[in-house]
Amino acid sequence: MRAKVKILDMYSGRYSVFINEEEAKKAKLHPDDLVRIESGKKPIYGSLVISNLVGPGEVGISRDILQLHSLSEGEAVEIAPAGTPESVRYIKKKMHGEKLRKVEIEAIVRDIVDRKLRDIEISSFVTALEINGLDMDEIAALTIAMAETGDMLDIDRKPIMDVHSIGGVPGNKTNILVVPIVAAAGLTIPKTSSRAITSAAGTADVVEVFTNVSFSLEEIKRIVEKVGACMVWGGALNLAPADDITIKSERALSVDPTGLMLASIMSKKYAMGSQYVLIDIPTGKGVKVETVEQARSLARDFIELGKRLGQYVEVAITYGGQPIGHTVGPALEAREALSALMTGKGPGSLIEKALGLAGILLEMGGVAPAGMGKKMAREILESGKAYEKMREIIEEQGGNPDIKPEDIAVGDKTYTFVAPTSGYVTGIDNRAITGIARAAGAPEDKGAGVELYVKVGEKVKEGDPLFTVHAESEARLDQAIVFARRTEPIKIEGMVLQRIGNI
Amino acid sequence: MRAKVKILDMYSGRYSVFINEEEAKKAKLHPDDLVRIESGKKPIYGSLVISNLVGPGEVGISRDILQLHSLSEGEAVEIAPAGTPESVRYIKKKMHGEKLRKVEIEAIVRDIVDRKLRDIEISSFVTALEINGLDMDEIAALTIAMAETGDMLDIDRKPIMDVHSIGGVPGNKTNILVVPIVAAAGLTIPKTSSRAITSAAGTADVVEVFTNVSFSLEEIKRIVEKVGACMVWGGALNLAPADDITIKSERALSVDPTGLMLASIMSKKYAMGSQYVLIDIPTGKGVKVETVEQARSLARDFIELGKRLGQYVEVAITYGGQPIGHTVGPALEAREALSALMTGKGPGSLIEKALGLAGILLEMGGVAPAGMGKKMAREILESGKAYEKMREIIEEQGGNPDIKPEDIAVGDKTYTFVAPTSGYVTGIDNRAITGIARAAGAPEDKGAGVELYVKVGEKVKEGDPLFTVHAESEARLDQAIVFARRTEPIKIEGMVLQRIGNI
Repeated sequence: MRAKVKILDMYSGRYSVFINEEEAKKAKLHPDDLVRIESGKKPIYGSLVISNLVGPGEVGISRDILQLHSLSEGEAVEIAPAGTPESVRYIKKKMHGEKLRKVEIEAIVRDIVDRKLRDIEISSFVTALEINGLDMDEIAALTIAMAETGDMLDIDRKPIMDVHSIGGVPGNKTNILVVPIVAAAGLTIPKTSSRAITSAAGTADVVEVFTNVSFSLEEIKRIVEKVGACMVWGGALNLAPADDITIKSERALSVDPTGLMLASIMSKKYAMGSQYVLIDIPTGKGVKVETVEQARSLARDFIELGKRLGQYVEVAITYGGQPIGHTVGPALEAREALSALMTGKGPGSLIEKALGLAGILLEMGGVAPAGMGKKMAREILESGKAYEKMREIIEEQGGNPDIKPEDIAVGDKTYTFVAPTSGYVTGIDNRAITGIARAAGAPEDKGAGVELYVKVGEKVKEGDPLFTVHAESEARLDQAIVFARRTEPIKIEGMVLQRIGNI
Repeated sequence: MRAKVKILDMYSGRYSVFINEEEAKKAKLHPDDLVRIESGKKPIYGSLVISNLVGPGEVGISRDILQLHSLSEGEAVEIAPAGTPESVRYIKKKMHGEKLRKVEIEAIVRDIVDRKLRDIEISSFVTALEINGLDMDEIAALTIAMAETGDMLDIDRKPIMDVHSIGGVPGNKTNILVVPIVAAAGLTIPKTSSRAITSAAGTADVVEVFTNVSFSLEEIKRIVEKVGACMVWGGALNLAPADDITIKSERALSVDPTGLMLASIMSKKYAMGSQYVLIDIPTGKGVKVETVEQARSLARDFIELGKRLGQYVEVAITYGGQPIGHTVGPALEAREALSALMTGKGPGSLIEKALGLAGILLEMGGVAPAGMGKKMAREILESGKAYEKMREIIEEQGGNPDIKPEDIAVGDKTYTFVAPTSGYVTGIDNRAITGIARAAGAPEDKGAGVELYVKVGEKVKEGDPLFTVHAESEARLDQAIVFARRTEPIKIEGMVLQRIGNI
C-alpha cells in the first residue's frame, strides 16, 4: 500500500510502523508483523502497530527510525509485508549444532543491522551461541561481518595501537593513564570506550568529567591525526552496529557468549583500523573471568582471532579481585586519574597496572626495546609528558586543559562506614562495591560513588573508616547505605559473617 | 511515579506503556524498559515507550493491555521500573543443560502469562528447549503450570472424551465427523480447535462455515452439558495462555520443541477436564512427523504424559502422506464433511479415518466392546444419528441446522489443472496443496481452496482434470495459479519432472 509518512513523537526502542485499522484489515496485517517501507532509498524494516492515530493513506513512524534513516513528514512511501528473512534458517542451523558458513554469518549480521531480525530471532541467535558456541572460523567471519556492516575509520598515522579491558572490575580508570603515556611516546592510539552498562562507570563516563566524548568519525580522525590519541565514546559511532543491537538480548538474559564477546570487542578494533591491540583480562572473584585458566584460554582466542584479522594481539592477565585504586564512580575516578597523571603518584594498583599495560604497548609499537617498556612508561608518566599529552587530548576534545582534581565536584551527601572489629581485610566484594555506587546514583549522577580507604591485606582497627559513599541527593545516599548494610562489601578477618538464632 | 491513565488507540502486539520524555529522564527510564503498573489490582507489566503523545502526569497504554486487564481513562496508577524477573535465571539454567525443578518451571510460566518475560526471554526459553529438551518430569510440570495459569472448565457430565490431531495434513476435516459420532453414542466431547496458522484451514475455520465458534467457557459448559459436545475455537478462551504467547516465538523461528508441543496440546486438554484423550499423529512426507518411528516415540511420550496428568491417552498413527478427502479450504471442506455426515458416504480417506478414530474413542469411553468400536461408529454415521447430533451442535452454537452442502458458497473464480501426460499418480505434495489454497486466499477467504479429483495410486489419462483451484477474486486466483505452476503438486509417473538444457 501507498501512504504518506507521519512522524510520531515517540521512542519505542524498535522501529515502529503505524497503520490504520481498516488498512491493516485490508492488507491482512497483524500487530507486530514485520513490514517493509520502500522510499526509493534503502528499504526500512519495522514492527507493525495498528492504530487510529494515523488515518487511511498515512503511515506513522516512531522517531527510532529517524536515528539512522531519513524520512520526512508527508513523504510518499510504499508499505508491504516482509516475509521471514532467509537468515532465520541459519540461526536454526546453529541451534541444531551445525557450523555456519561465512555467507550465512554475513546474512545474519546484515539482517540484524537492517532490522529484519528482531528481538525473537536475535535472542534465539544469542541463546544458540551461548549453548553451541562458535569456532574460530565462525568468530573471524562474525567479527569482519560486524565491522563491515558499519562505518570504518582510516587514520593516516601508523602504527595504530589499541588497548581494551574486558571489564568487570570496579574503579578501572587505568586506560586514562595508559592512553596519554602511549601517545606521548609518539604512537597513535584512537581509544573508544563504552559507558557503564552494569558497572558504576565506563571509561567514557569518567573521561566525560574532563571533556566531551561524543564525536563523529571525521572529528575523531582529525583529533587523532593532530594529537595522536583520543578518548571518546564508541556508542554513538556506527562502529559494528550489530553489536549494539545484540547486546540488548545479552543484557536481558545476562549472558555473554564467548564467540560473541570476542567478535564484539575485536570488530570495533578492526573498524578503528587498529594494528596492535593489547587486551587486558582482569581475573579474580567477582569479575567476568574468575580463574587464570579461563583467562589463558580466552587469551589464546584473542591472539588467534587477531591473526585472522591481520592484527597483532597481546594479552595481559591482570589481578581483578578487588577494585583498582581507591575510587569508584565517574567524578571520583576522574579525580584519582588526573591526580596520578599530574603527580606521577597514586595507589599502587592503579599506577603499576597502568605502567605495565603502557609498557607492553610501547614494546609492541616498537618504541621501547623488549623488557624496557614499563621503565619507559614510568619515565613518561613521572616526567609530566603523559600529563602534557592528556592536556592536549582534553583541549582537542573541547574541555579545559587546566582542570585540577580539586575542581571536580563529587557528591557532597556522604556517609562513612567504619570497621566493626579489628583485623586484616580479607576481601572486598567487587559486585557489592559496584552495587553501592550504582545505588548512590552512578553513573548518571557523576558525583556519586565510593571512596575506599583500605585494600585487601591491610590491617584495620575497630572504628577505622573503611569507605565513604558519595551521593548527589539524600534519597540516593539512603538507598546506597541500605544496600551497603545488606551486602557488607569489606570483609575483616574475625568479623562475624552471619549470625543465626532466635530473633 | 503517579500518573493518570490515557488509553491510546493502538494495538502493538505487546503491552506498551507510554510516558512523557521529561518524566522518563527524571525516572531514568529508557525505551523498551520493563515497567510495572500498580492500580490496586494485579500489577501489569509492559514495555516503555517514551513519547510526548502523553503529557506529564499521564501514562498512555495500548489497547493490547485492555484485552485482559481493566484500566479506565483517567484512573490513577503508579508506574515503576521492574527489575529482571527471577525466572530469567531458570531459563539460563536450561541453556546450560540443567534440569529444571517444578517451582522453576512454574515461575517461568507465571512470568510469561504475567508478561514479565518478553520476546527476548521467551525466545531464549524456546531456543533452549529446542536445543536441550525437557524430560518427562519437566514436561508434566510445564503442562500443569500452563493449564493452571489459565481458566479451567468443569463439565458436570462424565466421562469427558477428547480427540486431537497434531496436524500438518491438508484437508483434515476428520474430527467434524468424529465429534458428532462420539456424542451420538452418549459420550461427552467438548472439542476446542485452532484456526489455521500455517495451514489452509483449521477445524475452527471449517466449523465456522456452519455456525459460531467463539464462546466463553460458561457458554461452552452450557452447550456441552446440553448436547454432549461442542466444536469451538480455543483461541479466544483463556486456556493455557502461556502457550498462546510462546507460539509467537515458535512461529518466528519455525521451531516446535517436542516438550513444548506436548505441553501445549495436553495443557489445553487438561484445562478442559478431558479424561480420555485420543491423539491422532498423521505420518508421512510433508507433515510434522515423517516416519512411523518418530510417531511411535511421540506416542509413548503422549501416553506417559497422560499418566502424569491422570488422563488415559491412546494414540492413532494415521496416514498423512496426502490430503484427507478431496477438498482443502474452509468452505470446500465444510461441504465435504457435511455431505459425509448426511449420506454416510464420502472419500475413503475421510470416512475410514473418521470411523477408525471414533471407534477407538467409543471403546475408550466404554460404550463399545473392545474391537467393536469402528463397527458401532459406522452404524451411528450411516443411521443418520451422527448427522442428527451435528444438527444439535450447529443449532446450539447458533447456526442453521438445516444447512445443506449446496448452500455453502465456494469461490466462483476457478481454474482446473489437467494431467500433462497419462500414467499413475505417484505423489501429492501436501505443502504445495496447502500453499496453493493459501495463495488462493484460504483461510481468510472461506470460499478459497483446492478441489482434488485424484489421489495417489490412481490412473489418469492426459488431459484428465487433476484439481480445481477456487478463489473469491481473480487476483487471488492468479496468485494461486502461479504458485501451482511453480510447485507442480501432483506427480504422475512418466511425467518429465525437470528439464535442464539450453533455454
